[in-house]
Parts: sequence; C-alpha cells; structure tokens
Amino acid sequence: MFTGLSAFPLTPVYDNKVDEKTFISLIENLVEAGVDSIGALGSTGSYAYLTLSERARVARLAVEHANSIPVMVSIGALRVTDILSLAENAQHAGVSAVMLAPVSYQRPTPDEVYSLYEEVSRHLSVPLCVYDNPATTGFEFSDELLINIASLPSVSSLKLARLPQELSLATQQVNALRSRLPDHVSLGISGDWQAATGLCAECDVWFSVIGGLFPRTALAITHAAKNNDTKTVQMLSAALEPVWRLFKTYGSLRVTAAAAELLGKVTAPCLPFPLKSLSGQPRDQLGAILEDLKNLI
Amino acid sequence: MFTGLSAFPLTPVYDNKVDEKTFISLIENLVEAGVDSIGALGSTGSYAYLTLSERARVARLAVEHANSIPVMVSIGALRVTDILSLAENAQHAGVSAVMLAPVSYQRPTPDEVYSLYEEVSRHLSVPLCVYDNPATTGFEFSDELLINIASLPSVSSLKLARLPQELSLATQQVNALRSRLPDHVSLGISGDWQAATGLCAECDVWFSVIGGLFPRTALAITHAAKNNDTKTVQMLSAALEPVWRLFKTYGSLRVTAAAAELLGKVTAPCLPFPLKSLSGQPRDQLGAILEDLKNLI
Repeated sequence: MFTGLSAFPLTPVYDNKVDEKTFISLIENLVEAGVDSIGALGSTGSYAYLTLSERARVARLAVEHANSIPVMVSIGALRVTDILSLAENAQHAGVSAVMLAPVSYQRPTPDEVYSLYEEVSRHLSVPLCVYDNPATTGFEFSDELLINIASLPSVSSLKLARLPQELSLATQQVNALRSRLPDHVSLGISGDWQAATGLCAECDVWFSVIGGLFPRTALAITHAAKNNDTKTVQMLSAALEPVWRLFKTYGSLRVTAAAAELLGKVTAPCLPFPLKSLSGQPRDQLGAILEDLKNLI
Repeated sequence: MFTGLSAFPLTPVYDNKVDEKTFISLIENLVEAGVDSIGALGSTGSYAYLTLSERARVARLAVEHANSIPVMVSIGALRVTDILSLAENAQHAGVSAVMLAPVSYQRPTPDEVYSLYEEVSRHLSVPLCVYDNPATTGFEFSDELLINIASLPSVSSLKLARLPQELSLATQQVNALRSRLPDHVSLGISGDWQAATGLCAECDVWFSVIGGLFPRTALAITHAAKNNDTKTVQMLSAALEPVWRLFKTYGSLRVTAAAAELLGKVTAPCLPFPLKSLSGQPRDQLGAILEDLKNLI
C-alpha cells in the first residue's frame, strides 16, 4: 500500500466531539478521487488529541467508508500500553497498516526510540510505517537509526521528514538510504512543499496533507511524477507555493483546517481546543489564495 | 505555598504499574526533611506518561502522606477536557495548587496558549502555577505572554525555565519581570543547575528535581539563599556540578531515576517504558559521583 498518493484527511472535532458525518464525507471525497491509500488519524487527523475510543471509532469509520482503498492509522502515544491498545483496535477495525511516530514528553534517546519500535513491531500483524516528524515529536532520526529500525519485523515504510531542496541532492539522499534498506521497505515523503522534489527523487509514496482535502490536485502531481513529467510536477507545485508558504508559517494543520472551513467542507471551528485554525488576516489571505487556485483544487 | 523549596519526587513505575509503596516512601522522606511544598506528578513525576486514574490516585497518596505539607500536582494534557478532569480529580484529592505546562503535539501559538490558560483558570478553585518548560513542550513563553497569563484568575506562580547565568543579569531579569506582575504572583526557578543563581536573584521558590530525592541538600541551598549566605549557596551548588553536567547531557529525569535506583530508593527499572534511566558508563559515573557526594546528599 505504500506507493502513489497516501491522503491524510482531517478529523473534524466540533464542540469537543468528533464530527463523524463530516469525517465520512471527507473519506468519500478521497474514494471518489481514487487516492492510492488513506492515512486517517495522522497529524492532520489530530490523532494525538483524541482518546483511545475516539481513535478506535474513527479507524472503523475510515475503513467502512474507504471502499476497499487501504487505510493506515497512527498508533502514536506516550505510553506503550496505549500504543499496543491502539494497534489492536486499529487491526480490529480492519486497517491495512499502522503508522508510529516517537511521540514524546521527555525527548527520547535513540536507544529508547529503537526499543519502542522493537517492542511495538513484535505485536503487529499489519505493516508499520515509521513516522519521522521532528516538528511534533522533537526527535530527529539519524539515518543509522532509521536503517536499524527498518530491519525490524512489520516495518514496511519510512515517512521521511526532510530532503534537500535541490533535486540531484535529494535523489542522492534517497538512493543512499534505499541502498541500505531491506527491499520491501518503501520510502515516502511528507511535508507537502517538498513532495515535488521527493517524488521526482523517486520516493515511492507521498504522505500528503493537501491530498486529504484536495485529492485531485495531489493525484495530478503524483501521476505526473510517476510518468516522469517533471515539468508538470514542478508547475503544479509552484502554483501551490502560496499554500506552502502558509504551511511553513502557521503549520499545515491550521491552514488545511481553515481551508476546509472556508470551503464549507467542515463546520468551524474544526480543530480540538486549544488548537485554532487561521483567523484574521492570514485567513483572508488563504481565502484569496483558494479563490486564485479554484481551477486547480 | 510558592516560597522556599518545592520538592519534585519521582513517581516510580515498575512493570507498567505505579509502585505506590515506594512513592509513599519518597513522600515520607520529603516530610521528614521538612520541605516547604511537594510538587508531585511534575515532569520528574512522569505525569505525562500516566493515565488520568493513575494521576488521581497518585495525587491522593501524595496528599494523604504529606502530613499537611502543601502538595501541588501537574494537570497538563493535550486535550482540554482531560486537563479539566485532572484539575477536578486533583482538587478532590485535596491538593493545594496545580501546575500546568502547555503540553503540545502541534506546537501551539501564543494565542492558543493564552486561550488554554484562560479556559483552565476559570475552572479552578486552587492556585495555578504556570509551568514554562520548553525542553518538554517545545513552546517558548515570551515575557509578554507570561505577564498576560499572570493576570488571569487563579494564577499564583510562574515556574521559569531560563535565567542568565550571571547573577546581576539574572537579578535584573527577575526584577524586571516582577515589576510587571500582580503582587500575589510568585516567581520560581526550575532547572536545578541554575537554582543557586535564581535563588540569589530573589526568586521566591525553587521547583527542585534533586529536592525530590535529596531534600536536605536542596533545603541547605534554599536556606542559605534565604539568609543571603551567597557563599554557601555557591559552594553547595558547585559541589553538585558533576550532577548538573549529567542532567544537561542525559536529562534530569533519567539521572535522578538512576540515582534513586543506585541508592536502592526505588526498584529498577523505575521509569515508564520506553524511558530508561542511565546504563553503562554514565551509570557508573553517576555511582562514583554519588559516592563522592555521600556526605552532602
């Protein structure tokens, strides 16, 4: 399942409850667009803010409405017993894979992170994607650590956080890493603004935030990359540059939530308090950007 | 309660369960030493890794065994409904104050952090200590934000994360901040290695990690500071310099947990998996340091 476009939908939270009806409509949009997989309950799906039972329920809804498109959910939590419960619930819900970031309060050591993946991977019966997200976890994976973890059972994909901006350097880094990984482990890019580079550098999969809301645009980029149509990839990504700039300033979650609110795809406010989507000038700016891009998204 | 020494004990977790008997013995040690207050379930008490019911139980045990020494507990969590439940449970347990850090997954904005404290402070019937800990939360308070939050109802103390090393600069910063705070809001220092400077710069309280395990040593420093005996403060803090160095390298929690294990005060391993105390060379080094300091701690 770790190829092409993996689309990460929001989990709308209204009045402190998951807005299930709206969540289902977001999933249905992904199914209609024909994404390759669905990354429910990712960072964009606010997994860390939801209870174990909310997460079990959302995983079930995602699978039920995905029309056999593979679903992956995050099982990240601070306590390993919670991670294992989340994994069990997700597997019962019928997910095709799970994703784990080294969520932390005390910044973990590399040895602690390895032990965590070692322990969790022993208990899984579905593939595991290693989720590198230093912006939220405060932990930076070294290549060495990624390579060691990639040899654990169940590990099937690495979701990379950072690549060099320059395509030749990105390609070099992807190739260097791939040459040291087991063949069955795929490489994925996250951070939408570097997706064009990542896909052209032959990452197998784009773990995409905009793909969760604008799957057709993200699919156009992904398909062009697959066809080696670098020009189209770069043109589309460049058109989205104003969105990437907002992502970098306010965080992709706040921007995507605001876009969904502005377009009436969710009821505002849709983020779990105290998180807030954009307001004031940045929200107006996003509105203008969405208007400019209306033929693209 | 926000003056003198506030001692932060470990919450020993053995075999994935809170080791209640050992926790009580750590509290009893603080009572015998006569600390000014107890900060149970702080970062050193692994609050972020425990369930709501474990935290309710530990708060109750702390109050029951504190022999009327005021107890403060952390109510930090990602979801505000959890924070409010934790506050309610803590108040039912009879705590004298609560402490809140802006625990995050998505790094919060200053506006989100202000809204969080505004919402939580409205619901409290005990004083609130604002807990600035960028190392664990990833969030840096500005002075402006601290000052705005300090005017909210219930807010009674600020636990500062960073002061300049140089005493005159630290004093200047403490005075500047204090002049802009309501009179009833006390200022406390955390980060044990800067406690000597903080206390000599007239912080009202030391939120102390070593105080949770070595309360007599921490009290000696605190009392000397209160008596303006700068020389003794600096001498004691300097003697502990090898411990501060380990704190900076491995984190104060891992080092304190290893010290408690080495001294037989807790059953090893005492941290919630995947956190680990020290092993190998750093553990041996800590053992030698504790031996050197045996007349002091």
